[in-house]
Amino acid sequence: MEKNKNTKSFIDLAKRRGFFWQSSEIYGGTSGMFDYGPLGLLLKTKLINKWRNFFVKQEDNIFEIETSIIQPEKVFEASGHLDSFIDPITQCKKCNSIFRADNLIEEKTKEFVEGKKPEELTKIIKENNIKCPKCKSELSKVKIFNLMVKTFLSPTEDEIAYLRPETAQGIFIDFKRILVATRVKLPFGVAQIGPSFRNEISPRQFLIRLRAFSQMEIEWFVVPEEIKIHPRFREVEKVKIRILTRKAQEENGNETILTASEALRKRIVPNQNLAYFLARETQFYQSIGLPFEAFRFRHMLPEETPHYSKGNFDLEIKFDFGWKEVVGNAYRTDHDLKKHMEKSGVDLSVRLDDGAKVIPHVVEPSFGIERTIYGILFHCYRDDKERGWEWFAFPPSIAPYSVGVFPLVNKNGLQEKAKEVLKLLKKHFDVFYDDSGSIGRRYARADEVGTPFGITIDYDTIKNNTVTLRYRDTTKQDRVKIEDLVKIIYMKVHS
Amino acid sequence: MEKNKNTKSFIDLAKRRGFFWQSSEIYGGTSGMFDYGPLGLLLKTKLINKWRNFFVKQEDNIFEIETSIIQPEKVFEASGHLDSFIDPITQCKKCNSIFRADNLIEEKTKEFVEGKKPEELTKIIKENNIKCPKCKSELSKVKIFNLMVKTFLSPTEDEIAYLRPETAQGIFIDFKRILVATRVKLPFGVAQIGPSFRNEISPRQFLIRLRAFSQMEIEWFVVPEEIKIHPRFREVEKVKIRILTRKAQEENGNETILTASEALRKRIVPNQNLAYFLARETQFYQSIGLPFEAFRFRHMLPEETPHYSKGNFDLEIKFDFGWKEVVGNAYRTDHDLKKHMEKSGVDLSVRLDDGAKVIPHVVEPSFGIERTIYGILFHCYRDDKERGWEWFAFPPSIAPYSVGVFPLVNKNGLQEKAKEVLKLLKKHFDVFYDDSGSIGRRYARADEVGTPFGITIDYDTIKNNTVTLRYRDTTKQDRVKIEDLVKIIYMKVHS
Repeated sequence: MEKNKNTKSFIDLAKRRGFFWQSSEIYGGTSGMFDYGPLGLLLKTKLINKWRNFFVKQEDNIFEIETSIIQPEKVFEASGHLDSFIDPITQCKKCNSIFRADNLIEEKTKEFVEGKKPEELTKIIKENNIKCPKCKSELSKVKIFNLMVKTFLSPTEDEIAYLRPETAQGIFIDFKRILVATRVKLPFGVAQIGPSFRNEISPRQFLIRLRAFSQMEIEWFVVPEEIKIHPRFREVEKVKIRILTRKAQEENGNETILTASEALRKRIVPNQNLAYFLARETQFYQSIGLPFEAFRFRHMLPEETPHYSKGNFDLEIKFDFGWKEVVGNAYRTDHDLKKHMEKSGVDLSVRLDDGAKVIPHVVEPSFGIERTIYGILFHCYRDDKERGWEWFAFPPSIAPYSVGVFPLVNKNGLQEKAKEVLKLLKKHFDVFYDDSGSIGRRYARADEVGTPFGITIDYDTIKNNTVTLRYRDTTKQDRVKIEDLVKIIYMKVHS
Repeated sequence: MEKNKNTKSFIDLAKRRGFFWQSSEIYGGTSGMFDYGPLGLLLKTKLINKWRNFFVKQEDNIFEIETSIIQPEKVFEASGHLDSFIDPITQCKKCNSIFRADNLIEEKTKEFVEGKKPEELTKIIKENNIKCPKCKSELSKVKIFNLMVKTFLSPTEDEIAYLRPETAQGIFIDFKRILVATRVKLPFGVAQIGPSFRNEISPRQFLIRLRAFSQMEIEWFVVPEEIKIHPRFREVEKVKIRILTRKAQEENGNETILTASEALRKRIVPNQNLAYFLARETQFYQSIGLPFEAFRFRHMLPEETPHYSKGNFDLEIKFDFGWKEVVGNAYRTDHDLKKHMEKSGVDLSVRLDDGAKVIPHVVEPSFGIERTIYGILFHCYRDDKERGWEWFAFPPSIAPYSVGVFPLVNKNGLQEKAKEVLKLLKKHFDVFYDDSGSIGRRYARADEVGTPFGITIDYDTIKNNTVTLRYRDTTKQDRVKIEDLVKIIYMKVHS
């Protein structure tokens, strides 16, 4: 009970302060889609910038590209999405509601029916007398529904295309271009950040199962024979990682904490390239406000991984409703490049310095932006009875606003002075100005949206150019010279 | 001839160095869509950040939001796109090519047929014996084609939705939410940056007429009675603007240069709110590398503007093929909010401090990102015979890479020292490392992609921690202490 209350509280607070709201709300809303309001978008933009700095700029040889959201059918014939990215659906003959046939059957019969054909599922529904869960009427034959969002590239609607279900395919099909343009040698990586679309039949769990969402993905390409070695592994070998091994899952056991190099030595993680990303993700998620205990890497079970995959570790965040996948890490071998080579007839192999040609192997970390934001909101939420109001403990580097500026009163030149300070700070930070209500209420409003610093302009400010600098986390206050403000705040925001 | 050669050259250079390439190229390419390679995306990201800083952060009360790319049909019933965002098309009965019927007729008959019905156009085609331009065969009846990219929100394809043709509608339909969340008072603005889609029948002119493109839009909301006044107009009143007036267009005359306040006094621009944006855009486009003479504001002619519009000024950039619209500035009155109020039944009016309720008027500057990038590339391109190679004179604030780092030779510890400098600079800037070929070739490669600074590590570096800092624009070189590098470069990149 308490836990559900918590979920409701942090979402309520975020909605009330305009972090996000449902899309096209005035027209009844579009399920599974939402819009970012000003504060939500500031948080998202800072998260992306921090990720880009951490996983692209500070790395060696990782390049970011941006490919088209609409891609022709052939791309997904090659990638397998056209055949495999499907759900079996059935529709109520009376109320027209649509359901996933496998879910209905599994709920009723407790039997696992994955991989069964539509005709088989139709038969099972009949045999078990399964009816529409809403109106108890008869259900239609089971059909296959592709989860990709369909569109057309031509006015005559004969050229079918899809909104990409992931950003990754754009990287694979542009592989040769990137190679030539950058003159880079293996190993190297290509990143992409942007929207993806999945036509979920039952969108649910706000920010978790969406039809429009955004991803940050990296494809890290390696000479197959060198997959065991990552050039910067030394830098992370002592980083502690929390892993739920396959063995622990079979035995209902707990997570193990071990260093990246121990994980390799014990053969829990198959190679340095995967281990490197697990370590870096551990560092990254801690830097954006998640405690070490709030997330883990679950080694995917054999039945959860495709045949070509040689290692899958999902970063899962702990929520009140359970653990949820937020980042997928997959060692996909040469599967994707090979498929696109076959389909397109274009050579996507790489010539090494010794003249040999190889199809690179790939390790893919794939981050869900909305799920990450959901994790940040959940774990940074403070229902602070003592303080008397709720607040978000966002790290200064991703807090929507870094600073709030408050004139103590709206007279005697304090407003003008406050506007001066505002102007100075706006050159460097996201700042808001609030001159309405008591100073306590203004602190509360600033805390609510996770603003790490508050600056109050009072009569002393006019006398000696000092202000009160209030720290959100402790509510303590320092007297600080205006000329020192930028430096003090800059250090925290850029750490 | 020379001019066409120039267009080809700067595009060739940008393509060769991987700024962009056609989408889904290995599958034959998707016309009207392209992908950003690493350098193109760095340029785009910096352009967006600079715009955001200039038009959002440094402004008062402009908030950025991000709304869904897919919107239900009702949104476009209200906005008028469903009825009006259309082209008449005809298809060749033999070769199946599709053409705009109005274009074919206008080419053949020199008559202007805008607004005519499909049956009328079909009749004109018959009467004038117009055939397929490709194979000379008979053309089909004229049909109406909506330029929005269609998709479906439900598995049964009965819920039609569209990929947004502009980012603006998301702002209007979220208006009430934004108002409540921000507690802001009029005047205020809402910005959105992101992709939009238009199913162009004949995509053409690389980066100019695209089916997938990106926009930066602001809706600036004002109390109708206060439209003449902008709170920060004083700051721009002396900014010189280049305007092609309606009178000049009628008389085949030239542009007039006048200050923002002169433009108001002479009633060329109808209000301070529009004039403010024209002045700010003038400042902005100069700051991203376009000379004052390279762009102008064309007052749209009455037949080019919708009935509700009370002032339209297109920022046009001069290219070798002529002037092209890059930013649209429109005083749209209360048209959009009113339409959405009517359609949704939701009250989108604002209560003023005096208790009165108003539907705000809106001034909308709408920036095309790809066209802006095309303008930057065109005007920053230098076919430098003297230097011996082509290069881009990007301002340091938007150059894809800010710095290149070059060890003079790959031995005697110079590489290690260069990597140290690289690591130091990567914390602050986008930097690349190049150790292959002669130093002259490396300078050439750096210039080609518009890198403003080059740093060479030589034997003196090891002795006294100084490096050679080379300036792209002059090719001059300074001897600089490593510890001073960040400060020197930071000043230029952030100016």
